[in-house]
Amino acid sequence: MNNDRWKDFVSGIEPINDGKWAEAAARLDRLTKPPGSLGRLEDMAKQLAGITGQLYPDLSRKAVIVMAGDHGVCEEGVSAFPSEVTPQMVLNFLNGGAAVNVLARQVGADVVCVDVGVNADLSHPSLVSRKVRKGTANMAQGPAMTREEAIAAIAAGFDLTGELAARGYRLFAAGEMGIGNTTASSAILSVLGATDTVQATGRGTGIDDVRLAHKQDVIRRAIERNRPNADDPIDVLAKVGGLEIAGLVGVILGAARHRCPVVIDGFISSAAALIASRLAPLSTSYMLASHLSHEQGHARLLERIGLAPILRMDMRLGEGTGAVLAFPLIEAAVNIMSQMATFDDAGISQAVDKSTPEKV
Amino acid sequence: MNNDRWKDFVSGIEPINDGKWAEAAARLDRLTKPPGSLGRLEDMAKQLAGITGQLYPDLSRKAVIVMAGDHGVCEEGVSAFPSEVTPQMVLNFLNGGAAVNVLARQVGADVVCVDVGVNADLSHPSLVSRKVRKGTANMAQGPAMTREEAIAAIAAGFDLTGELAARGYRLFAAGEMGIGNTTASSAILSVLGATDTVQATGRGTGIDDVRLAHKQDVIRRAIERNRPNADDPIDVLAKVGGLEIAGLVGVILGAARHRCPVVIDGFISSAAALIASRLAPLSTSYMLASHLSHEQGHARLLERIGLAPILRMDMRLGEGTGAVLAFPLIEAAVNIMSQMATFDDAGISQAVDKSTPEKV
Repeated sequence: MNNDRWKDFVSGIEPINDGKWAEAAARLDRLTKPPGSLGRLEDMAKQLAGITGQLYPDLSRKAVIVMAGDHGVCEEGVSAFPSEVTPQMVLNFLNGGAAVNVLARQVGADVVCVDVGVNADLSHPSLVSRKVRKGTANMAQGPAMTREEAIAAIAAGFDLTGELAARGYRLFAAGEMGIGNTTASSAILSVLGATDTVQATGRGTGIDDVRLAHKQDVIRRAIERNRPNADDPIDVLAKVGGLEIAGLVGVILGAARHRCPVVIDGFISSAAALIASRLAPLSTSYMLASHLSHEQGHARLLERIGLAPILRMDMRLGEGTGAVLAFPLIEAAVNIMSQMATFDDAGISQAVDKSTPEKV
Repeated sequence: MNNDRWKDFVSGIEPINDGKWAEAAARLDRLTKPPGSLGRLEDMAKQLAGITGQLYPDLSRKAVIVMAGDHGVCEEGVSAFPSEVTPQMVLNFLNGGAAVNVLARQVGADVVCVDVGVNADLSHPSLVSRKVRKGTANMAQGPAMTREEAIAAIAAGFDLTGELAARGYRLFAAGEMGIGNTTASSAILSVLGATDTVQATGRGTGIDDVRLAHKQDVIRRAIERNRPNADDPIDVLAKVGGLEIAGLVGVILGAARHRCPVVIDGFISSAAALIASRLAPLSTSYMLASHLSHEQGHARLLERIGLAPILRMDMRLGEGTGAVLAFPLIEAAVNIMSQMATFDDAGISQAVDKSTPEKV
């Protein structure tokens, strides 16, 4: 693997289509509603037009990509659940019984489950096997992985997303599974987001105060030992990140490369988005935030990327569940643009004080 | 119309089924996810079980009821749009071209459009005509309507919701149309929510600073002139409310009476919910908040009822648009309960520190 392959990932990402964005904005103001009154739905409609270059994009083929990987740092006792839950949950995804399966089924999205670094030998006809290594090393003792491994995991996500786009998928959600991955994500936020480890660290799947303090301490030690370079996102990802997080960086960059919107899920997905945004600032225009997680630090993470969530569900499950919940809202934005009547169509009077429209 | 008919509306509303709520809570904790990690989705699943008395309720038959009415106070110049837009938009609803039609179609909900007080002669095969009077009187000059008229408009919504429930509808959204109705809703918030008129009053469909100050002044004068009794919600509704707001009070009480969940939309819908909650405190258990509107005062209004919104879309259109956007989230709550695997089903390890679960 060429150490500079990430430059390929980044170089193909173009700005969104400003002309189509403006065309969408103009049409929205002719629809039978006060200008701007559909709020974020209008923002999304414009963004989707800019991303796809189409006023009425067809986003019906959609997938939630669930990247799975294990974390050596679990041996420090940072999670409420044992590492064996990662492969168990991967099988649950493949058998259709997890929350993300239920939510994806409802909205007609496919669940694409990827083993990019699970610490078990997994085999299932529906599993996408792109294993780079069997889990990361314990970052409290040394780097989680090598730079080459981080790039290989990004490539796995990037290439897979390209394959899916070639097969007609047009909307992606970035989901994950990996016991211990809030620890890695908090470390990423701490380093790349210049955030104190206490503020950056939450309870993950549900740990008590004693274990939370321990988790914060482990993250602090991992950063001290590995000295990740905040100006080099790949270095941060390799030293204190995770394989599934790297895979999601690839998914996000791949979606942007192929001019597809990608919906960011919760804390871990957002840590991947932060890395992607630092590698390729243009990629942020292709991201849509879904929900604000219950996890401590998520608001900060989204703010660092410049994303604002639309759902407040107080969720903290991951898997892409929050992102998939946002799919109908994205579909709504597309439908508003294509199906609403204009003032002219409907013969409706417009505002009486058009000279002083509200600044929204 | 019996002046005391509202007692009938209220007396049939029962508490939700606590046993079924607890059964739902127990099942949620056996599903393959950390306890509580689906946040508000779990809250909704429990609430829906309590409301319907069923663990797996069928809410597939659903309607957004759009109550329409005009406001005499528009002659004071409180809105960016002229009153003629109310009947024009009613026709737009009936022809399927409005935002609420587009969003309802996407989620398989029916739009039920009700003329409870439009100041025009309307006729359309799909229009539900329950006109109580042609618009309210100008509340800046005297009461918006009589107590009898307010009760008749509540009855229209209450009876219609009962008819729809008898036809198999099991999920309702409370929408509205009425130029001038943020003015009435701000007056309701001001009186029933003990809120200063400046804090209670926003820009509605989009007015400038000068007109906003004027609108606040009109509301202050209407309250001073009519002296609505804050301990008598019907008195407040009659003196400074609106016919469509009264209709929605009936919809909400009717839904609660028939043990159906009712989704509250934005500022006006929430003003109706506040009145319903004061008439029948038990009705709040049947309400689900959808979005936090852009309209000034909406957060305060929801807080006074004790509701927390799940969507932050920055919308300010009304019509029930925000409520309909929440329908897929409610469906998701039902699906999680009925379709997810349990830990036992999937053979997944549970948390290692179950003795100290997180308090969510």
